[in-house]
Amino acid sequence: MAGNSFGELFRITTAGESHGPGNVVIIDGVPPGIELSLDDLRPDLDRRRPGQSKVTTQRKEADEPEILSGVFQGRTTGTSIAILIRNQDQRSGDYSEIKDKYRPGHADYTFDAKYGVGNRDYRGGGRSSARETNVRVAAGAVAKKILHQFYGVRIVGYVKQVGHLAADVPNPETITLEQVESNIVRCPDAKLAEQMVELIERMRAEKDSIGGISEIVATNVPPGWGEPVFDKLKADLGKAMFTLPAVTGVEYGAGFGVATARGSQNNDLFTTLDGRITTRSNRHGGMLGGISSGLPIVIRCAIKPTSSIPQDQETVTSKGAPTTISTKGRHDPCLLPRFVPMGEAMMAIVLADHCLRHNALKLHPMPQSGQ
Amino acid sequence: MAGNSFGELFRITTAGESHGPGNVVIIDGVPPGIELSLDDLRPDLDRRRPGQSKVTTQRKEADEPEILSGVFQGRTTGTSIAILIRNQDQRSGDYSEIKDKYRPGHADYTFDAKYGVGNRDYRGGGRSSARETNVRVAAGAVAKKILHQFYGVRIVGYVKQVGHLAADVPNPETITLEQVESNIVRCPDAKLAEQMVELIERMRAEKDSIGGISEIVATNVPPGWGEPVFDKLKADLGKAMFTLPAVTGVEYGAGFGVATARGSQNNDLFTTLDGRITTRSNRHGGMLGGISSGLPIVIRCAIKPTSSIPQDQETVTSKGAPTTISTKGRHDPCLLPRFVPMGEAMMAIVLADHCLRHNALKLHPMPQSGQ
Amino acid sequence: MAGNSFGELFRITTAGESHGPGNVVIIDGVPPGIELSLDDLRPDLDRRRPGQSKVTTQRKEADEPEILSGVFQGRTTGTSIAILIRNQDQRSGDYSEIKDKYRPGHADYTFDAKYGVGNRDYRGGGRSSARETNVRVAAGAVAKKILHQFYGVRIVGYVKQVGHLAADVPNPETITLEQVESNIVRCPDAKLAEQMVELIERMRAEKDSIGGISEIVATNVPPGWGEPVFDKLKADLGKAMFTLPAVTGVEYGAGFGVATARGSQNNDLFTTLDGRITTRSNRHGGMLGGISSGLPIVIRCAIKPTSSIPQDQETVTSKGAPTTISTKGRHDPCLLPRFVPMGEAMMAIVLADHCLRHNALKLHPMPQSGQ
Amino acid sequence: MAGNSFGELFRITTAGESHGPGNVVIIDGVPPGIELSLDDLRPDLDRRRPGQSKVTTQRKEADEPEILSGVFQGRTTGTSIAILIRNQDQRSGDYSEIKDKYRPGHADYTFDAKYGVGNRDYRGGGRSSARETNVRVAAGAVAKKILHQFYGVRIVGYVKQVGHLAADVPNPETITLEQVESNIVRCPDAKLAEQMVELIERMRAEKDSIGGISEIVATNVPPGWGEPVFDKLKADLGKAMFTLPAVTGVEYGAGFGVATARGSQNNDLFTTLDGRITTRSNRHGGMLGGISSGLPIVIRCAIKPTSSIPQDQETVTSKGAPTTISTKGRHDPCLLPRFVPMGEAMMAIVLADHCLRHNALKLHPMPQSGQ
Repeated sequence: MAGNSFGELFRITTAGESHGPGNVVIIDGVPPGIELSLDDLRPDLDRRRPGQSKVTTQRKEADEPEILSGVFQGRTTGTSIAILIRNQDQRSGDYSEIKDKYRPGHADYTFDAKYGVGNRDYRGGGRSSARETNVRVAAGAVAKKILHQFYGVRIVGYVKQVGHLAADVPNPETITLEQVESNIVRCPDAKLAEQMVELIERMRAEKDSIGGISEIVATNVPPGWGEPVFDKLKADLGKAMFTLPAVTGVEYGAGFGVATARGSQNNDLFTTLDGRITTRSNRHGGMLGGISSGLPIVIRCAIKPTSSIPQDQETVTSKGAPTTISTKGRHDPCLLPRFVPMGEAMMAIVLADHCLRHNALKLHPMPQSGQ
Repeated sequence: MAGNSFGELFRITTAGESHGPGNVVIIDGVPPGIELSLDDLRPDLDRRRPGQSKVTTQRKEADEPEILSGVFQGRTTGTSIAILIRNQDQRSGDYSEIKDKYRPGHADYTFDAKYGVGNRDYRGGGRSSARETNVRVAAGAVAKKILHQFYGVRIVGYVKQVGHLAADVPNPETITLEQVESNIVRCPDAKLAEQMVELIERMRAEKDSIGGISEIVATNVPPGWGEPVFDKLKADLGKAMFTLPAVTGVEYGAGFGVATARGSQNNDLFTTLDGRITTRSNRHGGMLGGISSGLPIVIRCAIKPTSSIPQDQETVTSKGAPTTISTKGRHDPCLLPRFVPMGEAMMAIVLADHCLRHNALKLHPMPQSGQ
Repeated sequence: MAGNSFGELFRITTAGESHGPGNVVIIDGVPPGIELSLDDLRPDLDRRRPGQSKVTTQRKEADEPEILSGVFQGRTTGTSIAILIRNQDQRSGDYSEIKDKYRPGHADYTFDAKYGVGNRDYRGGGRSSARETNVRVAAGAVAKKILHQFYGVRIVGYVKQVGHLAADVPNPETITLEQVESNIVRCPDAKLAEQMVELIERMRAEKDSIGGISEIVATNVPPGWGEPVFDKLKADLGKAMFTLPAVTGVEYGAGFGVATARGSQNNDLFTTLDGRITTRSNRHGGMLGGISSGLPIVIRCAIKPTSSIPQDQETVTSKGAPTTISTKGRHDPCLLPRFVPMGEAMMAIVLADHCLRHNALKLHPMPQSGQ
Repeated sequence: MAGNSFGELFRITTAGESHGPGNVVIIDGVPPGIELSLDDLRPDLDRRRPGQSKVTTQRKEADEPEILSGVFQGRTTGTSIAILIRNQDQRSGDYSEIKDKYRPGHADYTFDAKYGVGNRDYRGGGRSSARETNVRVAAGAVAKKILHQFYGVRIVGYVKQVGHLAADVPNPETITLEQVESNIVRCPDAKLAEQMVELIERMRAEKDSIGGISEIVATNVPPGWGEPVFDKLKADLGKAMFTLPAVTGVEYGAGFGVATARGSQNNDLFTTLDGRITTRSNRHGGMLGGISSGLPIVIRCAIKPTSSIPQDQETVTSKGAPTTISTKGRHDPCLLPRFVPMGEAMMAIVLADHCLRHNALKLHPMPQSGQ
C-alpha cells in the first residue's frame, strides 16, 4: 500500500535509505533452477555505482551485493531472493543545513507534508534518494538473465540527449552494450559523447546541472506480452520509468511526434518477413493495444537536471521562514549516465513480470488418456 | 493478473467488449454515506459518448448507466458499487472483412499472438476497443465527487493541440469546465477551436485522421498525496494515462522540456503565500519526489491519430497473406475531443486512490485515559 | 482493499446485495479458448438456489445467469468474464422491524459500527447476505471446468453432520456427485440423510435452526500446487472457506484430531504406487508444507445454525434500547444442504488460482538455435 | 505471486531459509512517528527463540534483529522497515541423509514436485522451515505496538491443550502475559503446565512428539474492523493461522461446537453495558459477518505433532526407492510452547492491516469555508 513493491508475478519489494545501514530487495517470482551468482549482479551495479567517472558524483560506494536467500548451490530455488547492499560512504557530518530547509526540486517539503514534520530522514534525501535504485538494478539483473535465457531478450539503454546535444539514432535496435559502454556518458554516438562530457563538466564548473533524454530498447520480445486494458505493456513500462527519480516525461515509438501525424502516416503496415508477421516500420514502438508486437520496444525518458546545485537558491525553512540553501554534498551534474542501467533494470522487471503473466495462462490440455 | 483492475484502495475492475452485451465496472473503496445517483454519472458519460458532435464517430449510444449495487436510498453504503452500461448500437453486420485481416495500428494481431488465433472477439475491436472506457468514466465521476466533496479538488482537461494547431495555455489551473465545454473540440482557446474543427473535418473528408495533445489539470490537491518509491503519484498518473488507448507519450510539468534546462532554471523555488508553503513557479507540475506539493497537477498526453481510416491500407491476414483493408465502420477522425473526459476520469481515480492511501496511515492516538 | 476480490491470478470480484437489482462477478484469469455457456453454470446454481426443496428457504429465485463479456462464439477470449444474476423475489415489504433492530448472530450491528448508522442496506442483510454467493458459485463452475479439462480434477462436497447426526465417511475421495445429489440434504449416507431431513423439519417446526459440518474433497490435484510460506494451499483454502457466511471452523486431513496424536502416529509414510510417489495414508489431507501432495485434498467446515429464527429473541435497537426481534422472513432452518455448492465453488476458485500460479513459473528454455 | 507477502495495507514480505545467511522482512504500512527500537522486538523474539527451555529444540540462536531501514532517530519514518535476523547455528554437517530422502510429514517431496528435483535447499527444510517465522514475530511486535498505542488492543496467546491434557479456560480474555510466561510450556493453568512438561519430556525420551491446541485472544479491538465479503476478519485470521507450519485446524468462538447447536442456543443476544452495545455471551468469538463486534476475538489452532522424530520411519528417495529415515537433527518434541508468539504475531499483523483498512475509508468532510 505504501508503494514499496513493484510488479505482480515477478515482484520486487525494497527498503532502505541513502545514509542508513543499506538497501535490500526481496524478489518474488523467480523460476527455480536458474544459475545465479554475484557475478550476474555486479556489472550493472558497477554501471550505476557513484564515483564511476568524472561526470558523476564522487560518493564512494562499492555497492557490493550479498544474496541472503533463494539461491542454493549456485541456482535459484524458486523461493524469494533477498539481496542486501550496505552503504559505506555515508557522511556522518553536519546536517543542520538541510534538516530544516527545503531543497528546491527535492522531496523534503512533500515528505514533511506527507509524514509530518520531524519524521523525515533528512540525511541525503533518506528514502527519496536515488540510492534506493541500487537494489532495483540488482533485481533488474536477475530479470535480464531470465529474459535472455528463456527468450533471448536483450535490453540496451543509452543517453540520447544532454541539454541541446541530441544524438541521431535511426536504428535503436542495433545499438550494442559495447557501444554504450565505450564512453563515460553512455551515448552511442562517440563523437557527440565527447561534447556531452564537456558540457557536463562545464555545468559542474558553473555550479549548475543539465537535463537530457535516455532511450531504452528491448529486442527479441515475443509478440503477445502485456495485458489489454489496465496493465498494457506501455502502461506498466510507463509507470516503471516514472518511478525513477527525475523522470518528467515518457514516450514510446513515435511518442509526442504523433500529435502532428496523420493516421495514414502513423500506421505501421503489416507484412511478413521470413514467414513471420511483422510491420514495415516501427512507429508503434513495439506495442499495439498495449501488447508486444515482436518489434523492438523503444522508450524514451526525459530526465530533469539535478536539483542539487552548489549555488545559493532561495527557499524556506519547515516553519516557512525565507532562507537560502546551497548543496554542499556530492552530486551528479547530469543524471543521464547513471540513469541508463536504472532504466534498463525497470524495463527488465516489467518484461519479466509480463513474461510470467503471459505464461500463466498457457495451460496445456491433458493427454487423451487422462480421465 | 490479467489487468482488468486498476488502483489499490480506490480500485476499479472492468469487463465488457465493444459489441457484446455491455460494459460493467465494480468500484471498491468508496466511503459510505456519500450521495450518489445517476445524475452524478451522466454529465461525464455524455462528454465521452459517441455521436455527440460532428467531429466524433456517428455510432449512436445513449450510454445510460445502471447502478447495480452499493448505493441505498441515494447514498453509498461503503460496499462495492457495480455500474452497468449496455451496448445498443452494435452492428450485427458482416465482419468477414476484419475477422481475418489485421488492421494497422490496432490490437488485432497482438491479441491473436497473445490469446491464439480464433479466440478474438473481432467485432469492433472487442475488449481492445475504447468502448470499455465508458465505465471508467462512470467510475471517474464517483472519484471526482469524493475528491471534491472532501477536499475541494477540481479536475479539468482540455485539448491543447490538434495536428499543428497548438493552444497556448499559460495558466492551466485557471481553465474552467465551462470554457472547455464551450466548443465541440474541447479547446479552451475558442478561436483555435474553430480551426481545429475545420482541420478535423478536413481529415474526415480526406479519409484520414489526425493526432494531438491533451492537458489534464487538478487543482486543490493537498500536499502529501503519493508514495515515495514505486507508487509515486507521477508514476501512477503516468500509468493511468498510458492505459488509455492511443496514448503514446505522457509528461508532467516541464515534461520533455527539462532535457535542455539547467538546474538553476528548472528548480521551482520555495516561498510562502498566505502563510502556506508553496513554490514561485510550477515547472514541477505539482509533484516532487512523487508526492503532491499542493501546486496544480498538470499532465499532458500525446494521442495518436485514429488508426481506423477509410482508405486502403496494406496489411496481411492471420495466415500472413498480403491483402488490403479499409475501415468501413464508424470512427472518430480525431480522438482528442472524446479523450478529455477519459483523461480526467483516470486522473480522478488515481487521486482518489492516493487520497485513501494517505488517509490510511493517519491514525490518531488514543486519549490519555485509554489503557 | 474493501475485500470484494478473491484470488491472485484466477481472481473474482463481486458486487451486489440481497434485495438490490442483482449480483455480478468479474472473473479475471480465465485462459482463452475454453468452451463456456450458461449450461456450464446452471447445474451448480441450481444446487445453491433458494427454494430448491422443503429443507431450504422458500424464497423463489431462478438465479438465471447472464454472461456479459469474455465469451465469444461459445469460447472464452482470455479477457475478463462478467456474469450477472438479477434478483427477482425481493420483498418490497415493511422493513421497519429490522431497520433499527440488531438481529442476533447477524452483521447488522457490526455493519453499523463499520459504516456508520444510517448507511446500511438493511433489506435482507444487504451485502452481508449469503445471496452474494450465487455469483461465486457461477465463478466456481468456470474454475471447475478449467481444472477438470486440463488436469482431471474433480471437486465433490457433501454434508457430513447435522446436529448430532454424523456420517461416517471413511473414504472421502470415493464419494460421487450422484451420491450427494441423491437426497435433498446432500449427505452421501442415504439412510442418515433421511434422519437429517427429519431433524431439519423438526427444527423448522420448533422455530429453531441447527448447525452441522460439511466436507469438501478434491481429487486428481497434481502435486506441487500451493506456495511455501504465506499462500500455502491450506491457508488459501482455509481463508476461502471462512469467507463463506456461518463458517466458524475449518480443518483439513486429521484436523483437530492431531492434538492428541503422536508424530509416529500422525506422519503419513511415503511409498510408491504404480511408479508414482504417494503416501500410505492421508492424515495430511493432501497438503504438506502448504503444497499439494497428489493425495485427495480433504477439508471440513463447521457451519453454525441459522441465526434467523422465527421466535422472539432479546436484542437492542441501534440506539441501544432493549427490544425483541423475531425473524418474519424466509430462511433455511439448516444451512448445510445449500452450503455444499458454495464450499465446492470456493475450493475450485482457490485451486484454479494456484494452478495458474504454479504454471506461471514453469518456463521452458529456448531451443539451442536461439540467439 | 509466489506467496512471500501477507497483508494489504500493513503488509509484510519475507525471505530466508533455515540454514542460509538469515531471514529478512520488509514491513510496508507502518505509520510515521512511532517510537521503535530493538527493545520492542526482542521480547517476542525471545519467546519464539529455539533453545529457550528444556522442552524446545536445542538449536542455539540469539535471534538478534537488525533494523535496516524505516526508523530514524528512534521513530518510524512512514517508509518501509526492513529487519534482518542472521542465522548463527547453522549446521554445516552432513546432509546426505536427507538430501535425497523424503522426510514424512515434511515438505521435501512437495517442494520437489513444485520446483523440480535438484533445486531444493534441503538444509533443515530450507524455506519450508519454521525458522522463517522469526521475522514474522519481529513484524508482529511492530503491529502489536501500533495496535496498543492507538487502540489499546492487547493480544495474548497460550497453550490450551497438549495431547489429552486440556486446560479449561472459561474466560480467555482474562489471561495475562504474565500468567502465560510463568511456565515454559505457556499454559495459563500452572498445574496442568507441569503435567504438560512431563508429557513433552516423555515424548522426547520415547523418540516421539505430540500435538496440541493453542488459543489466541485479542481484547479491546474496536467494533467495525474487517471487510464484509472476502476479507472477513475471520477469513484473514483463519488464513493467517494456516500460514503457520503444522496448523491443521482453526476455529473461532464456539468453533466446531456449533455443529450440534441450535440457533436459539448459539445466538449471542445484544444488550448494552456502560452505554455501549455488546452481547451477553461470546460464542461468536468477537466477529459477526466477518467484522469485529468489540467483544474479545478468540481463535484456536490445532498443531500437529512434530514430524521430525528420531526413530526410523519408512519412506522413499527422490527416485522412489524404499528406504528409512530417522531425524538426527535438533527438534521440538512439541511445537506448542514456541507456537504461541507466532500465533500472536500473525493475529497482530491481521489486526493492524484491518485497522488501516478501516481507517482508510474514514474521510472527514471539509469545513464549510473550504475550497
